[in-house]
Amino acid sequence: MTEISPAPDPTPINPAVEAALVASREARAASLLDFARIPSISALPEHAADMVTAAEWVADRLRRVGATDVEVASTALHPIVYGRIHEAPGAPVVLVYCHYDVQPVDPVELWETAPFEPFLRDGRFVGRGVADDKGQLVMHLSALEALRAVGLAPAVNLTFVFEGEEEYGSDSLFGWIEANRERLASDVAVISDSGYFEGNIPAITVGLRGIMYAQIDVELSPVDLHSGSYGGTVDNPAIALARIIAALKGPDGRVRIPGFYDDVVILTPAEREAMAALPFDEETYRTGIPVPALVGETGWTTLERKGARPTFDVNGMWSGFQGEGAKTIIPAHAHAKVSTRLVANQDARKVFAALRAYVAEVASPGVTVTTTFIHGGEPSLTPTDHPATQAAARALRAVHGVDPVYIREGGSIPVTAAFDHVLGLPVVLLGFTQPGDNAHAPNEWLDLDNFELGTRVIVRLWDELADLPR
Amino acid sequence: MTEISPAPDPTPINPAVEAALVASREARAASLLDFARIPSISALPEHAADMVTAAEWVADRLRRVGATDVEVASTALHPIVYGRIHEAPGAPVVLVYCHYDVQPVDPVELWETAPFEPFLRDGRFVGRGVADDKGQLVMHLSALEALRAVGLAPAVNLTFVFEGEEEYGSDSLFGWIEANRERLASDVAVISDSGYFEGNIPAITVGLRGIMYAQIDVELSPVDLHSGSYGGTVDNPAIALARIIAALKGPDGRVRIPGFYDDVVILTPAEREAMAALPFDEETYRTGIPVPALVGETGWTTLERKGARPTFDVNGMWSGFQGEGAKTIIPAHAHAKVSTRLVANQDARKVFAALRAYVAEVASPGVTVTTTFIHGGEPSLTPTDHPATQAAARALRAVHGVDPVYIREGGSIPVTAAFDHVLGLPVVLLGFTQPGDNAHAPNEWLDLDNFELGTRVIVRLWDELADLPR
Repeated sequence: MTEISPAPDPTPINPAVEAALVASREARAASLLDFARIPSISALPEHAADMVTAAEWVADRLRRVGATDVEVASTALHPIVYGRIHEAPGAPVVLVYCHYDVQPVDPVELWETAPFEPFLRDGRFVGRGVADDKGQLVMHLSALEALRAVGLAPAVNLTFVFEGEEEYGSDSLFGWIEANRERLASDVAVISDSGYFEGNIPAITVGLRGIMYAQIDVELSPVDLHSGSYGGTVDNPAIALARIIAALKGPDGRVRIPGFYDDVVILTPAEREAMAALPFDEETYRTGIPVPALVGETGWTTLERKGARPTFDVNGMWSGFQGEGAKTIIPAHAHAKVSTRLVANQDARKVFAALRAYVAEVASPGVTVTTTFIHGGEPSLTPTDHPATQAAARALRAVHGVDPVYIREGGSIPVTAAFDHVLGLPVVLLGFTQPGDNAHAPNEWLDLDNFELGTRVIVRLWDELADLPR
Repeated sequence: MTEISPAPDPTPINPAVEAALVASREARAASLLDFARIPSISALPEHAADMVTAAEWVADRLRRVGATDVEVASTALHPIVYGRIHEAPGAPVVLVYCHYDVQPVDPVELWETAPFEPFLRDGRFVGRGVADDKGQLVMHLSALEALRAVGLAPAVNLTFVFEGEEEYGSDSLFGWIEANRERLASDVAVISDSGYFEGNIPAITVGLRGIMYAQIDVELSPVDLHSGSYGGTVDNPAIALARIIAALKGPDGRVRIPGFYDDVVILTPAEREAMAALPFDEETYRTGIPVPALVGETGWTTLERKGARPTFDVNGMWSGFQGEGAKTIIPAHAHAKVSTRLVANQDARKVFAALRAYVAEVASPGVTVTTTFIHGGEPSLTPTDHPATQAAARALRAVHGVDPVYIREGGSIPVTAAFDHVLGLPVVLLGFTQPGDNAHAPNEWLDLDNFELGTRVIVRLWDELADLPR
């Protein structure tokens, strides 16, 4: 962020805390770099020890800011870090969530510098995890350190859940939440794993898409067949699969699974108007990826398609010969990984059942087709007028000097639905990274100004949430 | 072959030669096993030395039967074995073709015995290459050895071309034929690399399909995209490829490339009648593969689809994530290997041009699509009433006691077109293996009776061809 509009509130946070943040500027940056040097890749078994190191790093910082009940809780895979600062009797309890695991670094050859040798240069942190999500976790720790530096405590009671499997499906977290309902009892959840809108416009994410992920397997014969001897007389599983995929989504971008759109909450005219008012340039978006053309469901804008409409995608597909040159076979089988991004109020299991039925219906009799559920995550949608959402909006406005926008993100944060459905909590998605930060790609970065501003928004948020109706 | 109908000709071949064949029975079987122990896999560079060993083995046998001008001719890849027995002044010259290379053995775990430890048991040779094509090459050598054993020479002049790249595209052969037109000058070519019809009915292959092999590449973006962040706003290259493939071939089995069928020589009612009269059971064919159902171009029988109709197949296809579990990406690109089997008078280059144009026409504007030619081979069709075909028919009838059938095979033997187009020779495809011999699969086998009968058919053929009008 190069320019900050003048804040209407001349002292968005306590001046003593502000002075502490100014004084700790270098130490806080060093802290993030220190954290980002730990290669905590949750998807790769060889990094299991690094996961523990990262979890202990977080637990240690929590203890230093006076958190109690700090625990590095073992799970079937990577530990969950728990802790609490409950020093505001009668005030609301806020569940704070970030994750300490990071994405793999492949393709590592596209990194300009080593992924786990992070650095701060020209106003940017660069390295794996500096944005997603270690930077945000450090902002939370930094806010607490600044309060402690001047002898203060948060105005709300904070319960921390820092996860190590967000980039690997959060499998352990769900059971752990179920088993720890009591010590997770809260009034609201704040998840910091999202970001600004279009560069640097402060934003609150009010919608996240869910997901249904499945595999389609098409079998012809036990072994590959000679395409000369058998070609023309038997089905081709790759073609049979192509026909199924083509049947699942029309050239108009509409998913053709019967009933697929039945439960979709349609955008209201007011919501469409609000989305249309967001400063978004389609050509900038297109060339930033880049792709030859933007295409999607007829009748909706790109922003609507991205956040408020469900999708169908093929994530992977394979069959037969993939080498150089030619091999004249009819493949024995063909496979596809497919997924749908879901919006409120779609249900992953229901969508899967509809997918499986439709695939069976359109499949060629010349092959055997199986559709298997891989995983699901529910969509979430938070009302913009919820008091917690409004508290976050006030905190953003106080620090940035402008009103935040409310956005719907295309991705999924499965824990959101868990907090919502299992713990019954309203969820505020308040994050401080920029789109285009290469979160899952080489050369991930975090803007230093965002890092500074985000920390102040968090400081302010605890004050704003203190008045939350319980 | 368990039963042989009584031959109308009580002495199908010279009784002295027959006696020599009976006497050499064990030696001839041992010779095939000896040859089949050489792992002459043309596709694998690590077998280059084995290719030379196999070529020298063949050359040595040719020399022993008195062939002249024997040469193991170097090429850019594997050698070609040349030789001649021209001892019948004024008689026709017959070009004899077999190949000494074999298919790879993968998946080797499906072999019941080691592929290159061949054996003869219960009336069958088993091992890589015993059918395709070493057994047939040894039948030719055996016929010559039997003639020589009783002091005879073939009644025609024989020129031998034994190739080492048939299973790898025959690239070297084409240039070598062009460069050696003079010493290949002949009246007819006999190719022994085909077989019987439906088990054990003697057959002459009069039609072979050609081939056009290409690759379709679909590009979306430089890197995989997050399916949550981008899903719904950009095209999916795997879906775009699936739509292209679905557009190329209809559920009715018709290839939809405009003009694709324009040059196809349609079967005459008489030809269809002859094919319908062939003893062929669709259910036996289906369960022998096995596949869930036979499917193909509407309006044609399975035999017609296999031999006399062109096809479109996907030989391989790949895009994005192929591992266990889930990866939520929109793949950066998607690819397919595709091929069409061609029938007379289709032209591979013309079909490719039509394919490329149609792919470009149906491709989504959201992706970049490229279609690349990989290789082509022309179809061939020999008239059944050609004097050379009729000579082969008489040889088969004399030995088997039944009339042969005339069949069209779905596969391609590119050298057929080279002999036809480059050397201007009529081609007789006379072979002695059985369908279902696992020629390109594990546990390849050759029936011992076929081995014995085929050798006698060859002995007789040289007599029958002696009267060929020149």
